[in-house]
Amino acid sequence: MPILTDIIAALPAAVPFVGPEAIERRRGRQFLARIGANENVFGPSPNAIDAMRRATAGVWQYGDPENSDLRHALAEFYRIEAENIVVGEGIDGLLGYLVGMTVSAGNKVVTSDGAYPTFNYHVRRFGGELIKLPNCGEFEDIDALIAVARQQRAKLIYLANPDNPMGTFHGREAVSRMIDAVPEGCLLILDEAYLECTGLETAPEVDPLDRRVIRMRTFSKAYGMAGARVGYAIGHRDWIAAFEKVRNHFGMCRISQAGALAALQDQSYLRQTVAAIADARRRIGQISCANGLRTIPSSANFVAIDCGGDGGFARHVLDGLLARDIFARMPNVSPLDRCIRISAGTAKDLEYFAEALPPALQEATSIIPR
Amino acid sequence: MPILTDIIAALPAAVPFVGPEAIERRRGRQFLARIGANENVFGPSPNAIDAMRRATAGVWQYGDPENSDLRHALAEFYRIEAENIVVGEGIDGLLGYLVGMTVSAGNKVVTSDGAYPTFNYHVRRFGGELIKLPNCGEFEDIDALIAVARQQRAKLIYLANPDNPMGTFHGREAVSRMIDAVPEGCLLILDEAYLECTGLETAPEVDPLDRRVIRMRTFSKAYGMAGARVGYAIGHRDWIAAFEKVRNHFGMCRISQAGALAALQDQSYLRQTVAAIADARRRIGQISCANGLRTIPSSANFVAIDCGGDGGFARHVLDGLLARDIFARMPNVSPLDRCIRISAGTAKDLEYFAEALPPALQEATSIIPR
Repeated sequence: MPILTDIIAALPAAVPFVGPEAIERRRGRQFLARIGANENVFGPSPNAIDAMRRATAGVWQYGDPENSDLRHALAEFYRIEAENIVVGEGIDGLLGYLVGMTVSAGNKVVTSDGAYPTFNYHVRRFGGELIKLPNCGEFEDIDALIAVARQQRAKLIYLANPDNPMGTFHGREAVSRMIDAVPEGCLLILDEAYLECTGLETAPEVDPLDRRVIRMRTFSKAYGMAGARVGYAIGHRDWIAAFEKVRNHFGMCRISQAGALAALQDQSYLRQTVAAIADARRRIGQISCANGLRTIPSSANFVAIDCGGDGGFARHVLDGLLARDIFARMPNVSPLDRCIRISAGTAKDLEYFAEALPPALQEATSIIPR
Repeated sequence: MPILTDIIAALPAAVPFVGPEAIERRRGRQFLARIGANENVFGPSPNAIDAMRRATAGVWQYGDPENSDLRHALAEFYRIEAENIVVGEGIDGLLGYLVGMTVSAGNKVVTSDGAYPTFNYHVRRFGGELIKLPNCGEFEDIDALIAVARQQRAKLIYLANPDNPMGTFHGREAVSRMIDAVPEGCLLILDEAYLECTGLETAPEVDPLDRRVIRMRTFSKAYGMAGARVGYAIGHRDWIAAFEKVRNHFGMCRISQAGALAALQDQSYLRQTVAAIADARRRIGQISCANGLRTIPSSANFVAIDCGGDGGFARHVLDGLLARDIFARMPNVSPLDRCIRISAGTAKDLEYFAEALPPALQEATSIIPR
């Protein structure tokens, strides 16, 4: 394929995640509990579902390329201007645009080892050089991210807060200090996909005059609309203007636009969902504890469970869950991979999980004694 | 913004198209007839609408990143393999991926002057050098596209067939000859967004072993689902594998996936729609003729009407239509810009158009005599 760019030709054929449907097809059997992709089993507001149903008949029309209604509603919600917001095809889509705007071959990008693979996927696609830093215990290491970005003259720093896959969270003072420390010539991408699960007030307020950081948020997690692909970035107007140069202007699904707007307007449903997620986290903690396992305190819609062994051991536990039709995932690097990651499920989902975990652990122990 | 890449920093802030909603907001008034964006006013199959309604409740789940059901249904439809198909966020999204896979700074890309602005937008975003060739009369100039691509060692040739904005069409023998003539090291992007309007049998059969061409098709036009953002590319398996390196794997709306599958499975509705589009084209022809205007014979879901003057004259006619709440568009280069472009509308839409055209023409003539 001599027509491919050198960067693309050299890329391995890799996908960030294999979807649960693909795993089901290969197994020839459906999952009982879909608690592996940090989807929100409690789903979106009924108002959002209504809005999407009503929007289906109008799907012959392109969505508004300016996403005006949603951007203005978000602007009002955050008390900022619409010019500080860009809506895109999920945070995944926005990360792709942002990396493409900033990263050329050989540019350095700093992230945490084990952090969001889709971000890394985009960096590689544009020829960026990834520098992955170990966590500090169960937390992403803010100070190290900053120090290495400065030392290596990195263009981008990626921080998910709350963190995925561990679920840990840096408070507003720590994040504010981090923003203040972003080196000249560098941009902090603050991926706040899970922020609603712990509360917007736990993060520094958005400052539309600050060029050092772009905040990314989504309707995929607490709002329960992963399949609709609606994310947004908040930042300085110059950054948002730069997105306008590269984004797929007619890329948004019109039905999703309508759903996201209705979801945003139903904050009371969001609060219920966040409470249900917190209940599910507690239940995952109880189940783990009953099996002698420790959980990492989580501020997101999932819980990392320390299986008490190494990555090989946790992999066997995960396989045991999969064999019992529980879809879950695990971190892909040591030492995080001593954990498995369970998304907040319904009571029924977690009942299945509670049944499957003991035999899965027992089997793993019979293969690799802890 | 020192963090932007040189290419992005140098790009002007330009959008390929201003959406009708944006025009409505600026006017403070809604359109009576939305016949400017080549949307399909007849909408999707009722089965597709049902499928999308049913899918809304499951939108908490990400869409299948492999688009397996849709890809396999398309593969069966075309009697090819699923490995020869990639589904993406409309042809717009797929063009972005393909240009990003192939075009580096300074690479040459050949297209027709006045052809699809969104393709050009993507080429500029990746630093490609656009070579725009004049049409041969009302047709894209196949021989010139090939000759210049060979001479300039272009990486890509773009051809829309049926053509947009003129609606003209090259038959299967001409397109087959063009594919055979694609120079070594070059790829032909055959954008067949409107092909269903004239019939799939009017184009060369897809050949999944041919590396010289990628065919792009969509559910946005004849299938009536522009707002759902579902397009697909058909090509050699190596090309499809390359898309896997860059595409947004979780980028598809789950509701749209369900709708597109149901739409594909209702070919009888598609035939009805295509007949309704043909009726609308005839009606646009009658209206034009009654006003002393010639139309360009169209194989798409729109008709280019030669207003009989230059670009300035046609612009006045278009403004007169807009002032009468008719949303239409026109080509952006001479000599195509002697035309306005009217999408196939409902009977009611075209009634409004028939009412608005005579005074619009009269006003234009009073400003610039033809």
